[in-house]
Amino acid sequence: MANKYNDTQNKITKESIFTALMILMEKKNFKNISITEVTQKAGVSRMAFYRNYNILEDIISVYLDEIFEEYSNLISNYTEADSYEFTYSFFSHFRKHQKLITNLINSDLNTLILEKSVKFLHSLCNSIACKNHCSIESKKYNNAFIAGGFYNVLMEWSKSGMKESDEAMAKMVYERLIMN
Amino acid sequence: MANKYNDTQNKITKESIFTALMILMEKKNFKNISITEVTQKAGVSRMAFYRNYNILEDIISVYLDEIFEEYSNLISNYTEADSYEFTYSFFSHFRKHQKLITNLINSDLNTLILEKSVKFLHSLCNSIACKNHCSIESKKYNNAFIAGGFYNVLMEWSKSGMKESDEAMAKMVYERLIMN
Repeated sequence: MANKYNDTQNKITKESIFTALMILMEKKNFKNISITEVTQKAGVSRMAFYRNYNILEDIISVYLDEIFEEYSNLISNYTEADSYEFTYSFFSHFRKHQKLITNLINSDLNTLILEKSVKFLHSLCNSIACKNHCSIESKKYNNAFIAGGFYNVLMEWSKSGMKESDEAMAKMVYERLIMN
Repeated sequence: MANKYNDTQNKITKESIFTALMILMEKKNFKNISITEVTQKAGVSRMAFYRNYNILEDIISVYLDEIFEEYSNLISNYTEADSYEFTYSFFSHFRKHQKLITNLINSDLNTLILEKSVKFLHSLCNSIACKNHCSIESKKYNNAFIAGGFYNVLMEWSKSGMKESDEAMAKMVYERLIMN
């Protein structure tokens, strides 16, 4: 019971810290933000920060991991990993995190998304694009191409305010993706 | 005649500055390098630096522009812009600049290559991939996908020491590229 309370409390603490960082990043570059500023804005102690993170960048890294885990759960419902739904879910899921992506772009931290995308595709490797007997190198570079493609489309889409619908984005990228 | 001499002299100055920066970047992060260090290492005056650049990052930006211009000249020989040669030339051309790419990765400046790739593909836009009557958005995001794909494959290839041959890389990426 106590553990459950602690877990819930810690989840709230992490959410407060993340929200505080996002508010600060809307006003200034990430590199000019201190841990003290974030904890003060979040209304939590520095000890609460260090219970969850070592450095400020961890807040973003952990949050991105959660986003990719949610995305992974979303697409696990589809048997065909390279299906249209896979692509559609990518855009509908990341639209929910538009503010974070914009903040990352403004602080030149957007490549963190690319790094996470590459890792994510590695874990999905066997189910996507390269189904036949192909070499490890071929899989590696095929994944690199797809991760880079998705990442850069997400960047361009975010920079133009995500004005195209999730469906329109999915359709355009899906047409490029369905080979192999 | 005087102009030609000046042009040649200035080209040598720029090459010295670039070479000096590369030597320094092999030892330390770009953000810890000063203009004074670069000009001293290059054996040129600060005035010579400011005749060509405003800030240190300009050295890399200008050099990347030249790399893409050379690449553009290379592929202008091929009538089919999305041909195998287009892809092969990409890898054989960038292999020549392996040290620069490694230095950029080590200083977290590699996204400069992605930015230049996106711009480059925009200028090539009408001849690649999207030949039919498709919307401006479709072209934009198709280019974004291809630029992101090539960029990320180049990064992964560089990180593993470019050990795969240009031909092997071209073959893997070309297979992904030839749709549409």
